[in-house]
Amino acid sequence: MSITPELHFEYYIKQVERYLKKRIVVQQPRSLYNPCHYVFRGGGKRLRPVLLMLSCEAVGGKSTDAISAGAAIEILHNFTLVHDDIMDHAPSRRGRPTVHKKWDESTAILVGDVLLALAYRELLSTPTPDIQKISQIFTEAVVTVCEGQALDKEFESRTRVYVNEYIMMIEKKTGKLFSASTEIGATIGGGTKTQVQALSNYGAHLGRAFQIQDDLLDVIGDEGTFGKAIGGDLQEGKRTYLLLEAMRRAKGNERKALEKVFARKVTRKEIGKYRKIYEDTGAINSAMERIQEDLKGAKEQLFVLPETPARQMLIWLTEKVLNRSY
Amino acid sequence: MSITPELHFEYYIKQVERYLKKRIVVQQPRSLYNPCHYVFRGGGKRLRPVLLMLSCEAVGGKSTDAISAGAAIEILHNFTLVHDDIMDHAPSRRGRPTVHKKWDESTAILVGDVLLALAYRELLSTPTPDIQKISQIFTEAVVTVCEGQALDKEFESRTRVYVNEYIMMIEKKTGKLFSASTEIGATIGGGTKTQVQALSNYGAHLGRAFQIQDDLLDVIGDEGTFGKAIGGDLQEGKRTYLLLEAMRRAKGNERKALEKVFARKVTRKEIGKYRKIYEDTGAINSAMERIQEDLKGAKEQLFVLPETPARQMLIWLTEKVLNRSY
Repeated sequence: MSITPELHFEYYIKQVERYLKKRIVVQQPRSLYNPCHYVFRGGGKRLRPVLLMLSCEAVGGKSTDAISAGAAIEILHNFTLVHDDIMDHAPSRRGRPTVHKKWDESTAILVGDVLLALAYRELLSTPTPDIQKISQIFTEAVVTVCEGQALDKEFESRTRVYVNEYIMMIEKKTGKLFSASTEIGATIGGGTKTQVQALSNYGAHLGRAFQIQDDLLDVIGDEGTFGKAIGGDLQEGKRTYLLLEAMRRAKGNERKALEKVFARKVTRKEIGKYRKIYEDTGAINSAMERIQEDLKGAKEQLFVLPETPARQMLIWLTEKVLNRSY
Repeated sequence: MSITPELHFEYYIKQVERYLKKRIVVQQPRSLYNPCHYVFRGGGKRLRPVLLMLSCEAVGGKSTDAISAGAAIEILHNFTLVHDDIMDHAPSRRGRPTVHKKWDESTAILVGDVLLALAYRELLSTPTPDIQKISQIFTEAVVTVCEGQALDKEFESRTRVYVNEYIMMIEKKTGKLFSASTEIGATIGGGTKTQVQALSNYGAHLGRAFQIQDDLLDVIGDEGTFGKAIGGDLQEGKRTYLLLEAMRRAKGNERKALEKVFARKVTRKEIGKYRKIYEDTGAINSAMERIQEDLKGAKEQLFVLPETPARQMLIWLTEKVLNRSY
């Protein structure tokens, strides 16, 4: 009898949590490290480090060799969250005040900065002959994520954004961190060029699906488990896949209603109305199809890998992204 | 007839400028890369990359092998300036609006972030077998600079700061970037352990002297060439070496007057009065002695190096720090 994927997954997450707990400790100056510690006490899915470790295993490496790099990716991810939350004036994340709310903006800027350096510290401690290669993948990911965030901010002030532009943005802002995770993991594991490329593509597909699913959950998700209020994107006028795809398809009154989202004039009471517009225009179906396509594309990439429990876990994870309610 | 140190120095700076110009280019998204480009059009002494290249040469390496790492240190330095300027609410730098003033805070946060990643990109392109080593020195420097900045911010809200605490803060905030520059340069040049350590110490001494000189120039400097108004530190209530040393020595009315600096109640008209207090308490002399001591300590480190033009330049540079009026 083999352990279930859920237990297997939990085991990896525990490894990551234990490692992070050991590495992100409170020290002097406390004004800097207390908030760092706070960030990692807040939980998180730890999806990216697990992807990195599984990718390492899937090409024949040991997941323990990849744990510091996994931690690096998770710390990098949290650096982006801390700085994005300042830029978005977000008051809370995962049910707790954001760093710039609990402390102040200067602290949050500096905490993000040091987190990025701490991420590199972890990455550079990876036991691999390919330290230059994985550091370059990591660095290009940071550059790309910044570009994605810049595009996201640019879109905020535009009244028309094309779906294709949006896809490019999420490929940079979300997809790149997923593909860097799997690519770094496969590199540490000593994968062949074909395997590394396949896992990089897998991550890119998964990341894109993950982000569109995120957009979808804002409208059809479960308020309790998702950790943020339903319809938040709508009220904030966020340019999401659903909004842009609905806009592309809508005519007449529906179109006029959607213009109100762009102008940030939607109230909490109207969320149901917009869900209906997203359904009626076919935007929700379109998003679901896109997600399915990307998850199919992701799984196809895994065919080049040997049949291992790690590969099985990666297949299982693609399903989990689709079925998640948070 | 040999060329003068000034010309030699200028030559290195031109190399750095040319390299940076080639590498920091405007591209998409413009909202991100336009401000990056702006930052490097604003000039700067480029002292750190020149130190790095000279340290490489001083142990027998080629300075051209160190130019990408030199650019990395300069980009890192500018990342800290962009973020510090947000935290300090600084309206201008080198006579031009700061990034957060010319654009906005979100842009400045993101521009700083991408600059740090671009710095790593340059560092990781260095032709050296010691890429892991130099990346680790670089990363620890980033962590330390953040710690120094956190301490600096902590001091702002404290009414009593000890001179020793201040020295520790500037060792982190300013000294570490100097010592990382010389250590990385010596490592790229293939220096022995002793040589690398000596150049690292040289940088630490120089950096400390440089910062205390900076504090001094705010009070006794030349307004035109220094690029910022004289007495700015006094008006902002900055905890400088002069203020803390004067506070340690002052009694009675002088002490009362110094309390006003801590409380940020000094006006432009009073700057002359404070210069006199700094003179009368002996704080200015103390600062000058400290600088001399550090510059002597810096030069002594260079004895272990072979006699080369690069070593000569490093000796000349220590004098230049002392005699600079900007």
